[in-house]
Amino acid sequence: MTTESDAQAESQRHASKMAKKKAARDKIMATKEGEKGLIIVHTGPGKGKSSSGFGMILRCIAHGMPCAVVQFIKGAWETGERRLLTENFGDLCQFHAMGEGFTWETQDRARDIAAAKAGWEKAKELIHDPRIRMVLLDEINIALRYDYLELDEVLAFLRAEKPPLTHVVLTGRNAAEGLIEAADLVTEMTLVKHPFRSGIKGQPGVEF
Amino acid sequence: MTTESDAQAESQRHASKMAKKKAARDKIMATKEGEKGLIIVHTGPGKGKSSSGFGMILRCIAHGMPCAVVQFIKGAWETGERRLLTENFGDLCQFHAMGEGFTWETQDRARDIAAAKAGWEKAKELIHDPRIRMVLLDEINIALRYDYLELDEVLAFLRAEKPPLTHVVLTGRNAAEGLIEAADLVTEMTLVKHPFRSGIKGQPGVEF
Repeated sequence: MTTESDAQAESQRHASKMAKKKAARDKIMATKEGEKGLIIVHTGPGKGKSSSGFGMILRCIAHGMPCAVVQFIKGAWETGERRLLTENFGDLCQFHAMGEGFTWETQDRARDIAAAKAGWEKAKELIHDPRIRMVLLDEINIALRYDYLELDEVLAFLRAEKPPLTHVVLTGRNAAEGLIEAADLVTEMTLVKHPFRSGIKGQPGVEF
Repeated sequence: MTTESDAQAESQRHASKMAKKKAARDKIMATKEGEKGLIIVHTGPGKGKSSSGFGMILRCIAHGMPCAVVQFIKGAWETGERRLLTENFGDLCQFHAMGEGFTWETQDRARDIAAAKAGWEKAKELIHDPRIRMVLLDEINIALRYDYLELDEVLAFLRAEKPPLTHVVLTGRNAAEGLIEAADLVTEMTLVKHPFRSGIKGQPGVEF
């Protein structure tokens, strides 16, 4: 049976534990002074790589920070994100769909390479523009994996030409080791359980 | 040296490989007929749990699907997402911030429990509403971990009372084993590298 004094003691223990956590956290936060444009990578076989990229774009828009998206692979899809961003926030967020659908839909390597290279040219232009604070290179890791783009060229550009306060977000599974080394913030999305395995199809709002 | 015929042969090999991939994928997709409201969990110590939840809410809005967000922990923060969603898409997306900041900011267990319980009551009401197609329960895993909410009650409700086509997304690190078992789609965000470790503070657009 819990008495009133038990509950009071539990509350006091909790307050003391949380006060310690807060002190520890405040101490850590006080050392974080730098502001820096980050190279951010979302990779791994799980879900959420692109959608958390779009979540960050949404945050930029909410803060009034100009931003841009280049889609390297899913271009042929009329994705929900694309329509919503261009229709509502076209003044703050540029959207460039360069791919022609997943590579196994096109079966044309030359066309895929041309689309990837055009995407990268657009990406460089956007990253160079100092007004733009975040550039999302959605699914660029796929273009790198198939050698549609040269990793060395991408890394050299990010290292030498990215303005210091610009964030660049690169998504897609199988991120190259060199990209992970160059990045400031890397998250791997791990698949724990997926409904496709139990016969459920991709659904609006969840997959697209 | 690459001759024109080498390039042609490479293109043909590529087209044939991609055609096989497409056939395999089409075969898999043809078996995915079910439409089902999913229980979706984003967990793990990495970034992207909340932001990919917001990315899915954005997709719902883009498809004109009514949706809702209940924030269990970050309520005291004026997050970018909250302002942007309520100002622009209040007709499609309800937003309820129930928490009072991270628990180590408040040091008041009774108040935290009351906030979590109020959040769960609101969540049940939103999930019951058959017009709402997706409900994001942001950081509910934290409330479950501190026993502010009873896991059994949450699981029983999701099992018995969630309408069959409603998606419920539950985020936060340390998702309970029972929740992972009950879920249809689980992604673990793994931290590979984080700039806080090298003295960079949280920045707008990235962390909030």
